[in-house]
Amino acid sequence: MAKIKVGIIGAGFIAGVHASVLASDDRVELVAIYDVVNDCTERLARTCNARTAQSAAEVIDTCDAVYITTPNTKHVELALAAASANKHVFCEKPLATNVSEALLVVEAAEKSAGVFQVGHNRRFAPVYATLKQMLAESHTPHSAHIKMNRGELLKPVWTGDPAVTGGFLFETTIHMFDMVRFLFGEVESLLAIGSTHEYAEVDDFSVLLKFTNGVHATLASSADASWLFPFERVEVFCHHSTLLTREMETLVCSSNIQGHFAEQSMQQLPREEKWGYLQEDRAFIDAIVNGTPPAVTALDGLMSVKLVEAVYRSVETGEMSDML
Amino acid sequence: MAKIKVGIIGAGFIAGVHASVLASDDRVELVAIYDVVNDCTERLARTCNARTAQSAAEVIDTCDAVYITTPNTKHVELALAAASANKHVFCEKPLATNVSEALLVVEAAEKSAGVFQVGHNRRFAPVYATLKQMLAESHTPHSAHIKMNRGELLKPVWTGDPAVTGGFLFETTIHMFDMVRFLFGEVESLLAIGSTHEYAEVDDFSVLLKFTNGVHATLASSADASWLFPFERVEVFCHHSTLLTREMETLVCSSNIQGHFAEQSMQQLPREEKWGYLQEDRAFIDAIVNGTPPAVTALDGLMSVKLVEAVYRSVETGEMSDML
Amino acid sequence: MAKIKVGIIGAGFIAGVHASVLASDDRVELVAIYDVVNDCTERLARTCNARTAQSAAEVIDTCDAVYITTPNTKHVELALAAASANKHVFCEKPLATNVSEALLVVEAAEKSAGVFQVGHNRRFAPVYATLKQMLAESHTPHSAHIKMNRGELLKPVWTGDPAVTGGFLFETTIHMFDMVRFLFGEVESLLAIGSTHEYAEVDDFSVLLKFTNGVHATLASSADASWLFPFERVEVFCHHSTLLTREMETLVCSSNIQGHFAEQSMQQLPREEKWGYLQEDRAFIDAIVNGTPPAVTALDGLMSVKLVEAVYRSVETGEMSDML
Amino acid sequence: MAKIKVGIIGAGFIAGVHASVLASDDRVELVAIYDVVNDCTERLARTCNARTAQSAAEVIDTCDAVYITTPNTKHVELALAAASANKHVFCEKPLATNVSEALLVVEAAEKSAGVFQVGHNRRFAPVYATLKQMLAESHTPHSAHIKMNRGELLKPVWTGDPAVTGGFLFETTIHMFDMVRFLFGEVESLLAIGSTHEYAEVDDFSVLLKFTNGVHATLASSADASWLFPFERVEVFCHHSTLLTREMETLVCSSNIQGHFAEQSMQQLPREEKWGYLQEDRAFIDAIVNGTPPAVTALDGLMSVKLVEAVYRSVETGEMSDML
Repeated sequence: MAKIKVGIIGAGFIAGVHASVLASDDRVELVAIYDVVNDCTERLARTCNARTAQSAAEVIDTCDAVYITTPNTKHVELALAAASANKHVFCEKPLATNVSEALLVVEAAEKSAGVFQVGHNRRFAPVYATLKQMLAESHTPHSAHIKMNRGELLKPVWTGDPAVTGGFLFETTIHMFDMVRFLFGEVESLLAIGSTHEYAEVDDFSVLLKFTNGVHATLASSADASWLFPFERVEVFCHHSTLLTREMETLVCSSNIQGHFAEQSMQQLPREEKWGYLQEDRAFIDAIVNGTPPAVTALDGLMSVKLVEAVYRSVETGEMSDML
Repeated sequence: MAKIKVGIIGAGFIAGVHASVLASDDRVELVAIYDVVNDCTERLARTCNARTAQSAAEVIDTCDAVYITTPNTKHVELALAAASANKHVFCEKPLATNVSEALLVVEAAEKSAGVFQVGHNRRFAPVYATLKQMLAESHTPHSAHIKMNRGELLKPVWTGDPAVTGGFLFETTIHMFDMVRFLFGEVESLLAIGSTHEYAEVDDFSVLLKFTNGVHATLASSADASWLFPFERVEVFCHHSTLLTREMETLVCSSNIQGHFAEQSMQQLPREEKWGYLQEDRAFIDAIVNGTPPAVTALDGLMSVKLVEAVYRSVETGEMSDML
Repeated sequence: MAKIKVGIIGAGFIAGVHASVLASDDRVELVAIYDVVNDCTERLARTCNARTAQSAAEVIDTCDAVYITTPNTKHVELALAAASANKHVFCEKPLATNVSEALLVVEAAEKSAGVFQVGHNRRFAPVYATLKQMLAESHTPHSAHIKMNRGELLKPVWTGDPAVTGGFLFETTIHMFDMVRFLFGEVESLLAIGSTHEYAEVDDFSVLLKFTNGVHATLASSADASWLFPFERVEVFCHHSTLLTREMETLVCSSNIQGHFAEQSMQQLPREEKWGYLQEDRAFIDAIVNGTPPAVTALDGLMSVKLVEAVYRSVETGEMSDML
Repeated sequence: MAKIKVGIIGAGFIAGVHASVLASDDRVELVAIYDVVNDCTERLARTCNARTAQSAAEVIDTCDAVYITTPNTKHVELALAAASANKHVFCEKPLATNVSEALLVVEAAEKSAGVFQVGHNRRFAPVYATLKQMLAESHTPHSAHIKMNRGELLKPVWTGDPAVTGGFLFETTIHMFDMVRFLFGEVESLLAIGSTHEYAEVDDFSVLLKFTNGVHATLASSADASWLFPFERVEVFCHHSTLLTREMETLVCSSNIQGHFAEQSMQQLPREEKWGYLQEDRAFIDAIVNGTPPAVTALDGLMSVKLVEAVYRSVETGEMSDML
């Protein structure tokens, strides 16, 4: 079988992660790289033995599948172009940085003959994939208590520029808005309070979420505090049990009233597997090869954008956001 | 100087804790004990070398100061009687199990010639007292993420009986509603979601709190999950720092963006000091001896009852509770 | 059946612990207390509703069973007297503070008609009792790495006085010398290095132990370092598994090569059960009532004294101590 | 200034780490790669844009400086060749897998005009570099308790082949024998016990070490247990303080008798910096450029080989090994 020709648009850190994973997949041939910064293009192209392209359009034209790994606010234009060209598209999160544009991408993805997958890698990370399985099989969730902090918006410097990220929640915390849908289903309503301290945008959030299935959750997300471990933590309270994740490092299950627990450690896993990158890239290629639906759809991408936008709106208005 | 004659009404576990602390205070003479269960009265009276009284009224009549350590729903009647008799009163939390009765007690306390202190011991626990001091002196709080779980409402069995406790939030979680006022000031509004799973009452809560000074907080409180350590945890996010408590065991301060931290361990302290019982009893006697205001007033007691009632109301109505 | 009349000689902290446990045992009547300090005698006698005796001899004469809970260097004389009088004896650890005297007590215990049990409580603590069971049933030990520190010899002040303790190793570390025999069987030989830093005795030890069954172990014991948790830790290395205890708080079992583990937490247990005091006192009374052998014999007490003495000798000579 | 031409002999995992670090050093030009496996040579050469050499000799001939990153048992021959050719040599640990060959390399290194550095990277890892500094400046060590485990000798498979590694201690644990010299100075004598369980070599060790300055230490090293975190831990007991490292992740300092501590977390550092690879490679190039002595000398390499050999000898004979 002919190999799938893959191109990458945007040659920063996350592009390198995907390139390295794709290089180990026999079904794939990495053929073209493009970044607006020439040096980045060349360095990544050399590492993965691919061609340097002169434009994003050239990548789309000459490949079967395209990875969009540019800054957040550049995703939409490229996603529309690639999907319209009926190419397979792997679009990094967020799908867009506002709902109206996200809707355009969903429409294009639905019309396209290609597979369209969004890069919500945490669904594939063993801690979260296992948590999801436990909730589905044996631990019906009652409520959750969630934290998704960053220590700062200084390193790299663009993480503090909303013109690049679309806003702090679109960059990091959006992972958790996708995660709560993955774990608990659709959100019925939410109320959020935010405040601004260190950065030129709202950088500290408290959110209350109600899900259609009755689950409820508290979520804190701060960019102005610290990297005190764990800065990303999900606690789910079930029938006399607590399930807890710390980063993508450990998954704890305490299913008794003594305080005993079992802890799964992911420390021995390579980072691309621990963080789910390996699995999401395999899943994308699987969907292309097998003609099956992608594991994370454009609609999933839209829904997490909707939640982020609803949080910003609630912070502004002081009102609950109804999500239905 | 004549010793202060102290009596205790209600001779359960927490009465024993106070009795043991008071026994080590030279300014105090423990004179009378009463409990509706004779065995309890006798056991405690023997341990602390005090008289067994035949009624609560006898304790109030024959003592200068009265500890009210009965079940929650019995506090009000005894508090009113003792305050009206111008005795010094140490009333265990909650002050009452509804706002209207709490108001009566506040009124009686204000009219009384005696000191009136409420048993919110956590204010005196070194982890929380130190946290308070750090927030006041060097770490202005931005937001907080708080958990206050119990593993079950089975042991002791009365913890699951709302006729005794007034409701789960009045028994355990009320500590945290007093704590947030202690740390962050008055609550402006709150929204709460609750659900019922294992017990004959709402046993799982998610709460969003807004304070008048702009601080906001998420608070989870569950009685149906587990005793996974830490079941009581306060995280405060400040200017590039995180302050964290685990139970009353440890206080962590991370004031940098590397993830380094300093941890104060209270493990070597005796339990009555670690939990603040020693300090609150000393403070009560100090207030009596020095004629100074009590450290935790009837008004403080009322305010935490108000917050608990507001949470129950918000759960019922689905609406925000305005606290001002 | 007539209750067993128990007396206590030595009315310090540990006496209070045993008294409290015995008070909850229906088969026991606490009748007499003696301490060379009158105040201690009286306080404990009042708490447990017992008579104050005028001498140790009076306690021995008037009781069926005697607890010896005096300072370490006073155990031998009392143990000899009580055993010779054919009384049941519970002698706190250490049995003696040198081998020659320990041998005398073993001899007296063997001749006595009474039960003779030594207070190596850790054998009964759930973390260690469970560890022992796991090693016996499913995890054959290969080697062990053990730490038994104290943070200081200042509180209480007598812990730093070898005239009272018999030497630091006789006070605290002897627990671990009994524990290794309990877990791994008899020691074949050992080599120890010690040094003197903060106190008027050797206060810092490194020990290498070889057991007759081929197990080997490293043991560190310091009185001059800190109370950094855990100060008492046993790690046992088995067939691709590690068993680990921290104080008497937690027991960890990692039986895989991924790093996953299960942790049993004892935090919810009352202290007297967590530390094994409840169980050892029940076992002592069981042995009396049932005429069965004690759970920890005078010979066990002797063997741990032998190990401590061998460590001190090895430190002095720089030579291996042969234990067979 | 002309760039230093660096070649690499042995193109496995650790070669890739050094290549990546060297690629970011402007003073260096990576020119030639050789491995007995052609595929490895080609992959690494492509990644770092270097030439594939046809032999080790070609690398030595055509470069100013040579990295020897072959399997352990191949180090000596290459180190002798490169040093004799007066090239700068970075030789991965162990310097050799026996003392007699290590002596030959030391001799060659001393005669050579080139810099000779041994790859004991842990000296440069921030946890250990900081620990060393604290011991030197403010915390005089009394004794230490050290664990250096591996979870298995299965992944990669060659780790279980003594023909490749020279023996388990030469592969992983030798890091710790270098570390104790780095921290505490020269070893005066040691006694070791070993046993064989899962692998075709002694795989479980207990060691007692005495240093010339009076410090003493216990060291456990097992390859047959588990990856329970932390598998590498150094605890140093000082004047009422404990310093503790866990892997190269965290450094804890507890300098009081309450149990409080400060923890430095290295979690935010990139792996090549956290593990000291970046710093050791910079130090090697610094030594070349500045004509200064290397940070880890051939003599250091020899001394750690001597300690490993002494442990194996002690295990075999049952006798103490005198190191002076």
